[in-house]
Amino acid sequence: MKLSTRNRLPGTIVEIVKGEAAAKVSLQVGDNHVVALITAESVEELGLEVGQEVTALVKATDMMILIDEGF
Amino acid sequence: MKLSTRNRLPGTIVEIVKGEAAAKVSLQVGDNHVVALITAESVEELGLEVGQEVTALVKATDMMILIDEGF
Amino acid sequence: MKLSTRNRLPGTIVEIVKGEAAAKVSLQVGDNHVVALITAESVEELGLEVGQEVTALVKATDMMILIDEGF
Amino acid sequence: MKLSTRNRLPGTIVEIVKGEAAAKVSLQVGDNHVVALITAESVEELGLEVGQEVTALVKATDMMILIDEGF
Amino acid sequence: MKLSTRNRLPGTIVEIVKGEAAAKVSLQVGDNHVVALITAESVEELGLEVGQEVTALVKATDMMILIDEGF
Amino acid sequence: MKLSTRNRLPGTIVEIVKGEAAAKVSLQVGDNHVVALITAESVEELGLEVGQEVTALVKATDMMILIDEGF
Repeated sequence: MKLSTRNRLPGTIVEIVKGEAAAKVSLQVGDNHVVALITAESVEELGLEVGQEVTALVKATDMMILIDEGF
Repeated sequence: MKLSTRNRLPGTIVEIVKGEAAAKVSLQVGDNHVVALITAESVEELGLEVGQEVTALVKATDMMILIDEGF
Repeated sequence: MKLSTRNRLPGTIVEIVKGEAAAKVSLQVGDNHVVALITAESVEELGLEVGQEVTALVKATDMMILIDEGF
Repeated sequence: MKLSTRNRLPGTIVEIVKGEAAAKVSLQVGDNHVVALITAESVEELGLEVGQEVTALVKATDMMILIDEGF
Repeated sequence: MKLSTRNRLPGTIVEIVKGEAAAKVSLQVGDNHVVALITAESVEELGLEVGQEVTALVKATDMMILIDEGF
Repeated sequence: MKLSTRNRLPGTIVEIVKGEAAAKVSLQVGDNHVVALITAESVEELGLEVGQEVTALVKATDMMILIDEGF
């Protein structure tokens, strides 16, 4: 089993906010806070829960680069 | 200056591969390897170089969640 | 009328779940079940309904490749 | 401070619809009406309000091209 | 013919850079410069040319919001 | 192993065009032709080849809906 998606960030779910159609899943990934907006259906079918260890995935075409910091 | 984009991952550029239109920029982000496919134009205009400290950004709608590991 | 978007998948709407801002539209596309998360506004303006024949579109940069199966 | 994201469209917020997880933010950008689906969290943290001057950003990989018009 | 994609930006092609797999298409959209990274195949099949009037399309989930300016 | 990504389309690779940074992978998915623009690195690491059975994945937020047909 292999996926073309280059970017995998292992982390822990710290919050789930479910709406009717969409859901926000917040993760702690090392020192960083990461937020995913996925379907509420996915949250149910995967049985996602606060405290669970998961991996965040991002396609390379969806990564942007910022130089310097502060905004 | 503030951006709606939720996800910021500070890292170091470890490789740049430039094609005609697209460019692949690889980063070390903590323990993770991250790859961005951006325009070659962006690489030139930002003056991106190996060794540079940058921040990878991802929109929340582009984050996926994987449970368990191994693929 | 032509669109740069490479991927068109004709199918039938089997479910619509509308939230305040987002809406989930589920389609049957051949043997596959396909889900789109779009704005609730789009569902209203297009007048989408269960049973309607539509086409799902995906930009080539948003397609990922998985080898083997089973997850 | 520089971002690899190529596309910036300055405009004015004309409507905000907040759901539980997602929010729709509508902008007037020159003669065009533009809609962003972002997290409700972003709307709160940025303090977005109707009438505010903002900039819409789009990654080049998320831009599609349509020839002719009329649909 | 109607598309769920909310955002349409009419403009003129000012540059095309074709690589093997990807192509960069630059547009003038009102006062803004807009760049699309699409497949080289799309450029050929649509017969895109500098000077052509086209419409750039963006899905609402791919729009980000920036407040203030300057980066 | 489970992924939040809702949309899986099993198919066969019919063409691979590799550039420096990006690669185009074309699939036959039932009656439909599907194109993915991924990193050239992914093609190498997954060992993708014409004739191989793979699965195309798409996040729900990247699916658009078109009504009627003909463009």
